Amino acid sequence: MLEERTVVETDVAVVGAGPAGLMLSHLLSRAGIDTVVVETRSREEIARTHRAGILEAGTVAMLTDSGVDGRVLSHGHEHEGTVLRFDGESRRIDFQELVGESVWLYPQNEVFTDLAAARERDGGVVHWEVSDTRVSELTTEHPTVHCTTADGESLEIRARLLVGADGSRGVCRKQIPAEVRTDNFTEYPFAWFGILCEAPPSAPELIYATSPRGFALISQRSDTVQRMYFQCDPDTDVAQWDDERIWDELQARVDGPDGLTLNRGQIFDKTVLPFRSYVCEPLRHGSMFLVGDAGHTVPPTGAKGLNLAFSDVRVLAPAVVDFFETGDDAGLAAYSAVALERIWKAQNFSYWVTSLMHTAPDETPFAAKRRRGEFEALTGSRHGSAYFAESYTGWRDRT
Amino acid sequence: MLEERTVVETDVAVVGAGPAGLMLSHLLSRAGIDTVVVETRSREEIARTHRAGILEAGTVAMLTDSGVDGRVLSHGHEHEGTVLRFDGESRRIDFQELVGESVWLYPQNEVFTDLAAARERDGGVVHWEVSDTRVSELTTEHPTVHCTTADGESLEIRARLLVGADGSRGVCRKQIPAEVRTDNFTEYPFAWFGILCEAPPSAPELIYATSPRGFALISQRSDTVQRMYFQCDPDTDVAQWDDERIWDELQARVDGPDGLTLNRGQIFDKTVLPFRSYVCEPLRHGSMFLVGDAGHTVPPTGAKGLNLAFSDVRVLAPAVVDFFETGDDAGLAAYSAVALERIWKAQNFSYWVTSLMHTAPDETPFAAKRRRGEFEALTGSRHGSAYFAESYTGWRDRT
Repeated sequence: MLEERTVVETDVAVVGAGPAGLMLSHLLSRAGIDTVVVETRSREEIARTHRAGILEAGTVAMLTDSGVDGRVLSHGHEHEGTVLRFDGESRRIDFQELVGESVWLYPQNEVFTDLAAARERDGGVVHWEVSDTRVSELTTEHPTVHCTTADGESLEIRARLLVGADGSRGVCRKQIPAEVRTDNFTEYPFAWFGILCEAPPSAPELIYATSPRGFALISQRSDTVQRMYFQCDPDTDVAQWDDERIWDELQARVDGPDGLTLNRGQIFDKTVLPFRSYVCEPLRHGSMFLVGDAGHTVPPTGAKGLNLAFSDVRVLAPAVVDFFETGDDAGLAAYSAVALERIWKAQNFSYWVTSLMHTAPDETPFAAKRRRGEFEALTGSRHGSAYFAESYTGWRDRT
Repeated sequence: MLEERTVVETDVAVVGAGPAGLMLSHLLSRAGIDTVVVETRSREEIARTHRAGILEAGTVAMLTDSGVDGRVLSHGHEHEGTVLRFDGESRRIDFQELVGESVWLYPQNEVFTDLAAARERDGGVVHWEVSDTRVSELTTEHPTVHCTTADGESLEIRARLLVGADGSRGVCRKQIPAEVRTDNFTEYPFAWFGILCEAPPSAPELIYATSPRGFALISQRSDTVQRMYFQCDPDTDVAQWDDERIWDELQARVDGPDGLTLNRGQIFDKTVLPFRSYVCEPLRHGSMFLVGDAGHTVPPTGAKGLNLAFSDVRVLAPAVVDFFETGDDAGLAAYSAVALERIWKAQNFSYWVTSLMHTAPDETPFAAKRRRGEFEALTGSRHGSAYFAESYTGWRDRT
């Protein structure tokens, strides 16, 4: 019996319909370039997955300037600064005053929802809930995606270029042969215990807190839902933590002479987030290009994950447009090196903030006091604070 | 037989005639406060000991403004910047342009020579080559130094205050009882191989270089004598390194596309410098105050050792003057906390530059590339460069 198989041709096949894949597809479509996107999860599942919530101004501009949606501006919250808190002492880093930039609190799943709606509105082709995805012929001029659609049909997408936007556990990265791929990897000896709760905000801006009990992040989602985290052992079992124990632990990590008191409320989501750093080099293999988590992972401390995915797209999209419009592949040739420069800066920033604000399990008294010395040096210095602010807001200094 | 013993009374007994002890004695003497200084080494031995060579502007000002000597200005070299070099690529940090400050290249043994001459000129009492030094009655109002003079006489110095300026292996620090003393300590898994050579300078300013072979520092002394270092194993035996091997190793660590070539010459001094960080808390015990290496040690990377000793003195001297002139002991009471704030900032800076520019023995590819990312972020950022410059020149930002 002959296998039934649908073969489609397109300019760019995109594996993965997370924010990176959808944003790329959206930008290419605006330039008249045809894309087909495949995604293993359902649209609803991705929309329900809680991830990061801080957008750099450059990320916000990509959503608003390209006509995705202005909801980030009406529903998101502009944060003109953030607070670093050490043993109960808060120091605010004023992004606007220091570098003329803000960040926006707007959850990643909302970014996804807006992008998916925009792709639907503009007639973009996205196959949700595909299975058995694989990619082939990457070193030819007709890289191909194979998968089974939600309806059980065999689908083959033949493209001129292929983009791997399928996250850290996706299939694309692994297709770069081991002999030309370097996996740069590091693990941290702790994780984050993340919660979502029904409560009013405890602070107007994010508070990155460190104490002898370890790190905590007091974050927000909306007027009625909040997101908070605390440093924990990677093996922590969330079932062992009831609401009261969680609140006591969070409160203990922000206790200080200013009497900062967290607004408690019912906790409806508990997750342990692992801490990993990973960078794949290079980010290109033949006709395939990796963007976002498919190419790199950062620990959540610096809020760089989604922003880095968008900055990959900001480099790749115009290079793809150039290639199709003029045949010039200089932009494609430069993509990996250009994207990696920012990725390593972001890895360094994430590492820096992580090291500054977390208690290593075997931390010596010297190391703890050295960190305190760094906190004083950094927050007591206009130059140091501006260096932090410029990194946090995404290296778009306008002062 | 009755022991022969000379008893002298003074305002302040100073143990140690290194730069910290002599500078303090000099400043107090100018305010009419009587000091007696004792030192185990000979004046000639200290003058021959090669140590650090970079003075912050605040350190220079203490020498010139207090009338020690202007030789630092006529014989020292003003450095308006320094060079960070990563895998053969140099980036200059322009201190003057960024923060309006310079540092001075003027070796520590010259500082010592100037201070010893000034003390002699002004009739200061310094007992060189004493032995069997001990201190007693520290928690009383008549702390006492006991020692045997170079002539074999028993000497007892009864003072109102006692200053421990006797370095990291001195006797004073140990007199702070273990139950009230915290020894904050850390060791680094490498050392510096330092040389002095007869050669013209290889560069106009210091070059802090890192390469896959490790760190190197290309420094200067004078037009005809140069000081250089390279990162080595702490167990390195200098006898195993002949001149050619040393020059080849130094050259390999600065090799780059700009063709930087070191001027070779005869090496007449080879030493392995250990890398340690130490901070004693508190820096006061009763009537005794610790300054300089007696209270803290920094690794040599940030050139902070001598400057930190002088900044201790800058805090302590006016507090001592206040105490004798008005009886007000608020300055003395604050000394330890005020000095420690800067000490921890300096410890952090030394740790930062050390971590950025050295290859850890077990460094992963991720860690090496993260460091490169930091180098790019730091040198590519005006804010980051200014934060570095302000720390290197001693936190006296004038921009």
